[in-house]
Amino acid sequence: MTNFKTVTAGVLLIGDELLSGRTQDTNLAEIAKFLAPLGVQVGEARILADNAETIRDSVRAFSDAFDYVFTTGGIGPTHDDITADCIAAAFDLGISEREDALDMLRQRYAEEELNAPRRRMARIPDGASLIDNPVSQAPGFQTRNVFTLAGVPQIMRGMLADITHRIEGGAKVYQITISTSNIGEGDAAEGLAEVERQNPGVSIGSYPWFNDDLRGINFVARGRDKAQLERVRLQLEALVKSLL
Amino acid sequence: MTNFKTVTAGVLLIGDELLSGRTQDTNLAEIAKFLAPLGVQVGEARILADNAETIRDSVRAFSDAFDYVFTTGGIGPTHDDITADCIAAAFDLGISEREDALDMLRQRYAEEELNAPRRRMARIPDGASLIDNPVSQAPGFQTRNVFTLAGVPQIMRGMLADITHRIEGGAKVYQITISTSNIGEGDAAEGLAEVERQNPGVSIGSYPWFNDDLRGINFVARGRDKAQLERVRLQLEALVKSLL
Repeated sequence: MTNFKTVTAGVLLIGDELLSGRTQDTNLAEIAKFLAPLGVQVGEARILADNAETIRDSVRAFSDAFDYVFTTGGIGPTHDDITADCIAAAFDLGISEREDALDMLRQRYAEEELNAPRRRMARIPDGASLIDNPVSQAPGFQTRNVFTLAGVPQIMRGMLADITHRIEGGAKVYQITISTSNIGEGDAAEGLAEVERQNPGVSIGSYPWFNDDLRGINFVARGRDKAQLERVRLQLEALVKSLL
Repeated sequence: MTNFKTVTAGVLLIGDELLSGRTQDTNLAEIAKFLAPLGVQVGEARILADNAETIRDSVRAFSDAFDYVFTTGGIGPTHDDITADCIAAAFDLGISEREDALDMLRQRYAEEELNAPRRRMARIPDGASLIDNPVSQAPGFQTRNVFTLAGVPQIMRGMLADITHRIEGGAKVYQITISTSNIGEGDAAEGLAEVERQNPGVSIGSYPWFNDDLRGINFVARGRDKAQLERVRLQLEALVKSLL
């Protein structure tokens, strides 16, 4: 078995609205799909309330635990936008309004529109590098291995373009899916476990689906060795055939 | 200000597929909306990989931090279904196949279909009480303040019905939304913070939205005092009017 380089990321999704059921997060999947071709796997995600201590502690824990950390949300102009301060607190850094960040805001706002709340969006932890925001100009920023992005999906997506070149990826994780119907998950379970045992480095998941009267299972195998994954595909197809 | 009883829940969403971007979680919002009328607020959620140590540690941490904990995912018949063992490990409990859980499976499976993988779904941590599954019979279970539910949304939803009576709720959180367009978030920020300052116990969030060429902000105020929230509504409406 070849030794593939594993690179992982943690994702912190910040905002009361994500926990109340009011807003459905879509940023996690977007970030995961952005990272997959770079060879970075999301290891854990947390959805956090607008609470300074929790955000600070989670940033610290994730910065230690993962190669990269992404935060989304809480960098706008209003009083509930506290992420920048929490990042600074997590790393014991100062935070202040920065001229290069203000310059970005000036692309959008006339000088008289740059009131105190909008200038808050130019407050950046010391030493952080700015992340371009092609949608609404107010920048994101990178502090060590932590990327701090906007929460609005359109803006978040725009910022990802300025992150690709900052990531040192690992071996890409490939994925195959075998979709079946008329098979019981419990009947396939032993065979699935056996295929996984025979293929170190490959993880196999079994996901039942329901669609009106139809039901079935998707078997999903993931691994970094493409040739091995093709062998797993054949083994899973043979397993399915044996159960029909 | 009246003293309202605060009851909180933590949610653990378990499964590699939620982190890879393959599957979009919808269970968190479903649980939050189920809990809101019972007066229980979700305080944090974590999306965890199929990793036994992480699941065990998160269950422990959440069981201490919140009044109730909900886990979804990982209680099916396949090798990647490890949640029941992790719950037992979190509380240093034994775990074994239970006759009452098997009886539930017998409603669905003939005796010859009850192979070893399917019988795994009857393995329950010692002392846990079962949670009915009207959709596919394999039960969920309650261990102390932790409810362990299926990951498939249709099944998860079915299990919630058997949880309502187990919850001792708190004061319900009410929510009002003022939707605006043609207002800049930065122009509203100071007024918003002032309304929040004047209304202890009410939290106000500001959520920009984009819809093709239209853009606007939703101001969302949440609190347990309904009368106070109606006063906040008037204050926010006056704020919006002053900015148009």
